[in-house]
Amino acid sequence: MASNLAWEIVDGLTTEVGPRLAGTEADHRAVEWAKRQLETLSFDKVWLERIEFPVWTRHHESAGVVSPFPQKLHITALGYSGSTQGEVTADVAGFASLEALQDAPLEQVKDKIVFINHFTERTRTGSGYSDSVKVRYEAGLIAEEKGAIAVMIRSIGTDSHRFPHTGVSTLAKEPLPAVALSAPDADQLARIMARSEAVKISLNVKIDYREAGHSWNVIAQVNGRETPEKLVLVGAHLDSWDLGTGALDDGAGVAITTAAAHLIGELPRKPRSSIRLVLFGNEEAGLWGAKQYVTANADTLRNHIYASESDFGAGAIWRFDTDNPVLMDTAMPVLEALGIEKGEAASSGGPDIVPLEEKGVRIFRLRQEGSDYFDYHHTADDTLDKIDPEQLKQNVAAWAVVTYLAAEIDE
Amino acid sequence: MASNLAWEIVDGLTTEVGPRLAGTEADHRAVEWAKRQLETLSFDKVWLERIEFPVWTRHHESAGVVSPFPQKLHITALGYSGSTQGEVTADVAGFASLEALQDAPLEQVKDKIVFINHFTERTRTGSGYSDSVKVRYEAGLIAEEKGAIAVMIRSIGTDSHRFPHTGVSTLAKEPLPAVALSAPDADQLARIMARSEAVKISLNVKIDYREAGHSWNVIAQVNGRETPEKLVLVGAHLDSWDLGTGALDDGAGVAITTAAAHLIGELPRKPRSSIRLVLFGNEEAGLWGAKQYVTANADTLRNHIYASESDFGAGAIWRFDTDNPVLMDTAMPVLEALGIEKGEAASSGGPDIVPLEEKGVRIFRLRQEGSDYFDYHHTADDTLDKIDPEQLKQNVAAWAVVTYLAAEIDE
Repeated sequence: MASNLAWEIVDGLTTEVGPRLAGTEADHRAVEWAKRQLETLSFDKVWLERIEFPVWTRHHESAGVVSPFPQKLHITALGYSGSTQGEVTADVAGFASLEALQDAPLEQVKDKIVFINHFTERTRTGSGYSDSVKVRYEAGLIAEEKGAIAVMIRSIGTDSHRFPHTGVSTLAKEPLPAVALSAPDADQLARIMARSEAVKISLNVKIDYREAGHSWNVIAQVNGRETPEKLVLVGAHLDSWDLGTGALDDGAGVAITTAAAHLIGELPRKPRSSIRLVLFGNEEAGLWGAKQYVTANADTLRNHIYASESDFGAGAIWRFDTDNPVLMDTAMPVLEALGIEKGEAASSGGPDIVPLEEKGVRIFRLRQEGSDYFDYHHTADDTLDKIDPEQLKQNVAAWAVVTYLAAEIDE
Repeated sequence: MASNLAWEIVDGLTTEVGPRLAGTEADHRAVEWAKRQLETLSFDKVWLERIEFPVWTRHHESAGVVSPFPQKLHITALGYSGSTQGEVTADVAGFASLEALQDAPLEQVKDKIVFINHFTERTRTGSGYSDSVKVRYEAGLIAEEKGAIAVMIRSIGTDSHRFPHTGVSTLAKEPLPAVALSAPDADQLARIMARSEAVKISLNVKIDYREAGHSWNVIAQVNGRETPEKLVLVGAHLDSWDLGTGALDDGAGVAITTAAAHLIGELPRKPRSSIRLVLFGNEEAGLWGAKQYVTANADTLRNHIYASESDFGAGAIWRFDTDNPVLMDTAMPVLEALGIEKGEAASSGGPDIVPLEEKGVRIFRLRQEGSDYFDYHHTADDTLDKIDPEQLKQNVAAWAVVTYLAAEIDE
């Protein structure tokens, strides 16, 4: 709780690099920055692991109501969206949900701009997001099948500010232009549609796509004192969306897990097994770094005792989840002092841990208060001022304790 | 409290017109819209009063840190800002206040982009804004005198969201490009400047300016039953900035005062004197409508018993200010039931009332809770969802009571 390192890391990354969309020059600066930082900290080894993936970037996007009530709409293109051919104008076909779009007859959709006004519920655990994100992934595919010319979704977010939320859609050969409206703009469009049968929208989206992009997973390790070949993997993702500075998503996770691993590295007596910190590359566009990690480390996955990622902002941790009663009982007396309650078997280790979990690696989870996480997630407003330094410290303390114990306990 | 009219008005104006910068086609649609609405309500007469003024509009604005840490900055051009000649790049000279800029030697400012990082304090009364707004008015003039090429100010606002706040600067012959940074961007730039002696910024601002613009004050009257030539003037301003839909500024005021005047017009027994509703044109760029009203009505200003404007959002009214003990004592029993306390002599009747006050017209004031008003003020985020329908109703009730009594009391 005394260390200010996590704040220094997230302050540094978001200020000195800022937005860092995977595969861009800014992302490569982030990799340089992270490697340089890790080399000054208490790790025994720091290395890079190359990842290859296609790179989607935005040029510009704009939209407006043309009739009956001309006005601008605030939008952002979704990752893997296609471009319009200059500005296009079309009638809007509105739906309350993905299911309603799925059920719609072709003639209701053909040659129109589809608008899906699906709401995302605010919950502590972020379950509202999980329930809604399918709209972002699938709206474009379904709309295209039915002959639409573009798709607009209400942002997958819980705020009512004029920030559209970006995020990845589905990688396709010839994708429709796919954009998100901010919540107030989605409300506005719904009010306009309630007043008029024929609402015309103009849309102009230009994106760039190149097949051959790359980045790196940035990896560092604190070697264990007895069984250094065995390891507990903790991490976060280094890349961010292009709109904000990626403070909550996922500068905070980078800062928390790096600081926790560093604190363990500073101990005079290292834990039995190793701690491996992985700052994953290109999480946002589809877990490219996480998948590459599993491929590149296939031979040693059996040595991964545990894996867990911090990728849910900077809210205080309120619960510890593990299926290991020894780890739970050893950790809880310390975690209780940090205001953390005893949980159950972890249902997820974080997005970048999914490929490891699928290979049988055990997970634990430190659950964060996330009621406001989806207010900022994937928006321009994901900036450093949204992080509470005290809550960040509580995260570091909890991660240091659990990571240490997971590497120390001899089963 | 039972009437839903104010909500219907602000919902209609912000949805069916949206942003309505004075002198633009959207503003002219707003005038049409307002006139049409007033003609359906309980007024004896509705008329327009033409106003002429220059029209400033934005084409585009963008800015970024070029070095040492390249990244975009979120800005908005201030009203009456000049243009850059395409994109310009220059070193930044930072100041904590207008005074610090004033005291700076020429060589510290010449050929640079000036950045003023002055904070606006959050207060219930909005006094933080009054203390800060001088920066917006004067920064460009002072920076120009000292040979700067442009000026950037921290937004005059109280939020920490990535919305820059626009607002008028000073009308000048050859104005400097003048822009506001959002609060998170101002913090970011300050952090970057703390890390580096030489910070280079790029700036690209293009605006349009034409001398001969026009709009109208939209006026309606409920005639008094005994002395109809005497009148109580209540109002708000119809124009808004171009970024948001002008829900709080000043759709709410339009809705509140229109609904209050209409409710009085519906009474079987009208008050002794008339109620005149004035929806002022072009408040934002310098009280053009308010000044024109005083000129056009010079002969009858002595018949204006009272004047007051609602132009502080949609927060609940908490205090009634008047220097008239009879009006105070008659109104207070009803206002107390609305949660409103007894105040003192009014120190202001609202911005559009200033020219009337200067001619000796008496004012009253219904003070609103304004702690969050400057979170949204002059930003893209000033939208309908920021208005609480119940607080809007409380405003209407208070305005109806005080306006009625001001026109009824025989002194």
